[in-house]
Amino acid sequence: MSAVRDAESGMSVLHDEAWFAARASRGVQGLKAYDPGHDLVAFRRKYGTENLVELGSNENPYGPSPAARAAIVAQLDSLHRYPDPLGADLKRALAAKHGVETNRILLGNGSHELLMLLAQVFAGPGDDVVFSRYGFAVFALATQAAGASRIVVDALPDDHPVMPLGHDLDAIATAITPATKLVYLANPNNPTGTWFGREAFAAFMAKVPSDVIVVMDEAYAEMADADADAATALPFLSSHPNLLLTRTFSKAYGLAGLRVGYLIGAPGLVAVMERLRESFNVNGPALAACEAALGDVAHLDSGCERNSAQRIELARALERRDLRTYPSQTNFLLVRFGPQTAQVEAALTARGVVLRPMGGYGLPECLRITVGNPDENRRLLAALDDVLETLR
Amino acid sequence: MSAVRDAESGMSVLHDEAWFAARASRGVQGLKAYDPGHDLVAFRRKYGTENLVELGSNENPYGPSPAARAAIVAQLDSLHRYPDPLGADLKRALAAKHGVETNRILLGNGSHELLMLLAQVFAGPGDDVVFSRYGFAVFALATQAAGASRIVVDALPDDHPVMPLGHDLDAIATAITPATKLVYLANPNNPTGTWFGREAFAAFMAKVPSDVIVVMDEAYAEMADADADAATALPFLSSHPNLLLTRTFSKAYGLAGLRVGYLIGAPGLVAVMERLRESFNVNGPALAACEAALGDVAHLDSGCERNSAQRIELARALERRDLRTYPSQTNFLLVRFGPQTAQVEAALTARGVVLRPMGGYGLPECLRITVGNPDENRRLLAALDDVLETLR
Repeated sequence: MSAVRDAESGMSVLHDEAWFAARASRGVQGLKAYDPGHDLVAFRRKYGTENLVELGSNENPYGPSPAARAAIVAQLDSLHRYPDPLGADLKRALAAKHGVETNRILLGNGSHELLMLLAQVFAGPGDDVVFSRYGFAVFALATQAAGASRIVVDALPDDHPVMPLGHDLDAIATAITPATKLVYLANPNNPTGTWFGREAFAAFMAKVPSDVIVVMDEAYAEMADADADAATALPFLSSHPNLLLTRTFSKAYGLAGLRVGYLIGAPGLVAVMERLRESFNVNGPALAACEAALGDVAHLDSGCERNSAQRIELARALERRDLRTYPSQTNFLLVRFGPQTAQVEAALTARGVVLRPMGGYGLPECLRITVGNPDENRRLLAALDDVLETLR
Repeated sequence: MSAVRDAESGMSVLHDEAWFAARASRGVQGLKAYDPGHDLVAFRRKYGTENLVELGSNENPYGPSPAARAAIVAQLDSLHRYPDPLGADLKRALAAKHGVETNRILLGNGSHELLMLLAQVFAGPGDDVVFSRYGFAVFALATQAAGASRIVVDALPDDHPVMPLGHDLDAIATAITPATKLVYLANPNNPTGTWFGREAFAAFMAKVPSDVIVVMDEAYAEMADADADAATALPFLSSHPNLLLTRTFSKAYGLAGLRVGYLIGAPGLVAVMERLRESFNVNGPALAACEAALGDVAHLDSGCERNSAQRIELARALERRDLRTYPSQTNFLLVRFGPQTAQVEAALTARGVVLRPMGGYGLPECLRITVGNPDENRRLLAALDDVLETLR
């Protein structure tokens, strides 16, 4: 760390993190970076990729459409060109898929970027942002980065008969104050896996003042079973211009490596967000691959069906081991391991099985387990049996 | 555009761009999006890629190292995995190249993202940000987005014997006020091509108070000839912790399609910026390709040498046509076309030759011409001769 003399006082000044933090915006002063979990690159070097069972990041074990890979290969001769700053082809494909105008769509470097931009644009010091306890971690980060105040609403209780730890929409609506600028919802929610239905959502929206912007993060929407009644904001957009949704290519489309998310909302909202969006925020291979992936509906559907079957099977297998799982319409399960959670997690990690600890979410007695393919789930359960036996 | 009834007043409310803008942060209210130039995707469809001469975006006609392409192909089986949130391998390679510790390096989704983040973190309403007239457009955008005030310092005069329109470092140092938080410099500068030397930069840094953060954008640094004395901030970093530099893989490395930039600065500054950086801001193929590109020094050097030779040749050819070019140590030339500039530009565009108009920079009588490969430069000059003949 370097020390220099201050120009005015002549005193030696240490330019360390505290010095820079003191000069940062109020939001950044209180900010802690997003926790992306274990250092998987280090794990892969230590264990070898083939010896690892990576079930910590809700990645899609079936991978992307082969058309996405082909689209990247077709891009290799134009890497020296800037990507299309408008993302016009991808937006057209998304508009056609969702039956909306292209001017309702904003592309992001992952939906993470969009969730951050929303708070940066619409919330600041003195404003409230409302979201559920156990809601997606980026909601709190985005609020803090913007210097706004968070109102964290209690989730449904752990002994709720239908949706334990799920969003309590009534309580969220009640928590809105005159200072509330944004509400973040996630449906289905990460890391709980829980969801709410269309009727409940309609009732919620009827209670929200029309000058409060409601963000519905639908990162896992494609994975919800059709008969599960997990609401999407899509049919509500035309009647509720203060509502928008975010989606991602990282989950059901199997393209987490490319960082592409999108927002669908009112054209006026998109126009204001476009002012701040960096013109080349989604890169060339990513634009091409996502457009190609959208065209392969069969691949998407097959991956979601396989995930759904594996999720049911894995939940049953865990429950047979007396482990409580929470309701999920995603590609992961929140699982309660009790007081031994940290030991279980450490022992699994030592066996090359990577799950996601939930201490940062205030759920230290739970782990989040990505639903893998049949082979990964078998290896997970074998390692788990071994660990549970050892700890008994 | 949708109209809904306001919850309290019962009045119909139109949620258009003005409605959302009125709810946006002060900075975003006055913000206009970055102008990325012509819609090249539309042009490519209209003219066919092979009939276009794309010299508007300072892209590298020699393309990236073949190793970069190979690294992307090697990534195709792991597109479903999140990229390394630490970017550890790329940071190690950059640290080795520049002889700095990895904790001095921050990766960005292009240096554009880093330039935006710097203002977001360190400048806000009531703060001043200082930069030169004709400085890189993102400086003004970043300042505005953060809600800070810009102090735009006059450039060296157009009749300056050595560096017309270049940064006036003395005037920039003088313009710093007690409210100044950030100074943005670019060396060499886009869109002028101008630069300043090491001694002048040392004298400048000696005048800047140690609590003002100086950002040196070095997007074109690799392209400057060794004997041109274009200063880089690198040797000053250890003695000036308030100084940092940004670089990019978009220019000399020929990887504009991938969006990777980086910052080198004090570890404390990097630590504070890391709080706000989105953990997966650089995507998987991009990380791999840039690491591979760094290893191919011969490719980098050869591209820079060819560019330098072509820049000299193109400048001479333009001057033979009585067109004034400005000094440049980059892969582009600022060229004065006079009162006919708009007609020249339109006529060239109609012939499939794309240059960058400079009206947005306050230089409506100039165009910025990327130095192409020999074939592109020949086609440019042929089209230009045709156009100048027509307009005579």
